[in-house]
Amino acid sequence: MDPFILYIGNKNYSSWSFRPWIALTACGIPFEEQLIPFDFDAGNPKFLEISPTGRVPVLHHGNLRVWESLAIIEYAAELYPDAGLWPSDRGDRAMARSISMEMLSGFRALRGACPMNIRREIRAIDLPQGVVGDVAHIEMIWRDMRQRSGGPFLFGEFSAADAMYAPVVNRFKVYDLVKAADTRDYMQAMESHTAWIAWRDAALAETWVVPEDEA
Amino acid sequence: MDPFILYIGNKNYSSWSFRPWIALTACGIPFEEQLIPFDFDAGNPKFLEISPTGRVPVLHHGNLRVWESLAIIEYAAELYPDAGLWPSDRGDRAMARSISMEMLSGFRALRGACPMNIRREIRAIDLPQGVVGDVAHIEMIWRDMRQRSGGPFLFGEFSAADAMYAPVVNRFKVYDLVKAADTRDYMQAMESHTAWIAWRDAALAETWVVPEDEA
Ligand SMILES: N[C@@H](CCC(=O)N[C@@H](CS)C(=O)NCC(=O)O)C(=O)O
Ligand SMILES: N[C@@H](CCC(=O)N[C@@H](CS)C(=O)NCC(=O)O)C(=O)O
Repeated sequence: MDPFILYIGNKNYSSWSFRPWIALTACGIPFEEQLIPFDFDAGNPKFLEISPTGRVPVLHHGNLRVWESLAIIEYAAELYPDAGLWPSDRGDRAMARSISMEMLSGFRALRGACPMNIRREIRAIDLPQGVVGDVAHIEMIWRDMRQRSGGPFLFGEFSAADAMYAPVVNRFKVYDLVKAADTRDYMQAMESHTAWIAWRDAALAETWVVPEDEA
Repeated sequence: MDPFILYIGNKNYSSWSFRPWIALTACGIPFEEQLIPFDFDAGNPKFLEISPTGRVPVLHHGNLRVWESLAIIEYAAELYPDAGLWPSDRGDRAMARSISMEMLSGFRALRGACPMNIRREIRAIDLPQGVVGDVAHIEMIWRDMRQRSGGPFLFGEFSAADAMYAPVVNRFKVYDLVKAADTRDYMQAMESHTAWIAWRDAALAETWVVPEDEA
């Protein structure tokens, strides 16, 4: 089989790249990583060469191009059905997709005001309207799913749903957004995962600065 | 098996309800429809009773709740693998998911400025920034996919990807947004589908008015 080649942006900032990267890594799915640093001043011209949307992540598999973080995960789940990207129970899987798609389509206030920034020191900011509601709704989702599954991850073992929320764990931490013990337990589980640690260490070693993402 | 119960909003306005409704209907998947009219003044209290997000669409299947339009489609595709919700070729399926998720996560300018409105008379409006780019990108997607498949739908036969773009067909028409012949061919194919006609006729018969969606 042709290798998976996953194109990503800066590990410090690219929240959408992080999602399929941590999903594939945590589930042991082999891929080659190609990191292309952001160049917003020039309009990210290299992204236009590799991606139909001009955005990352994008997966190259032979001649096929798969874009959108969650579509990449679905494609990998089809090719590696035993890797555990999705929960094995059908009802769990349906809910895992529901909350993954909520992440994809929603939480615009949080995403806009609090960009992922792995290197950032912990510091609260003034929160525009909507952020507090987004945070509360995400905490409720995490609580409900972990109470059903028993944790430590949303559906017990790490799954694609955790991958979709991984950047939020960084946001909650570096903008000092939450206090609840059960939220912090989940953040702790994510931050202890070997795949998280590998991404974090690579992000900490980067030196590129994207001013738009320094809130 | 328990019946599928699909909760939707007004057929004239609820673009997200339209997507799973037309997908399931076009692919012959049985479901009961429960229409709950919007009540934005009161904060749509009934939606909170039936849906974990307080939004429609939501699918009830026994005790399971599945929300987010595309997660409902994925769940139906798992239970009815032969209904043809997704293209049968794996590469096509990956691209169908990529463009479906682009719809779910993007095109905010078009969606914000030009709400779906089946009853609306054709009339152009002043377009805020971003709408023209969204329209051009969608036309490019439709053109690329139909050139690959030969049409009339994005992947030949009607699929979930067409369902995800169905409300855009209405927007392109009633806000008079496009001229290209191939775009109009695709719109024609959609508007001739029996599932489209069934939804449209029901929408035309509704009398509720949602001022926010009258652009
Ligand atoms: N919904 C897309 C979002 C992709 C996205 O917005 N990627 C950003 C980086 S995190 C990007 O490539 N931005 C570059 C640009 O817009 O020029 C997904 O899930 O993959
Ligand atoms: N991303 C969601 C969007 C759902 C959505 O925004 N639904 C609207 C109707 S089209 C709604 O229920 N609005 C009521 C409200 O927000 O109170 C999906 O794909 O299902």
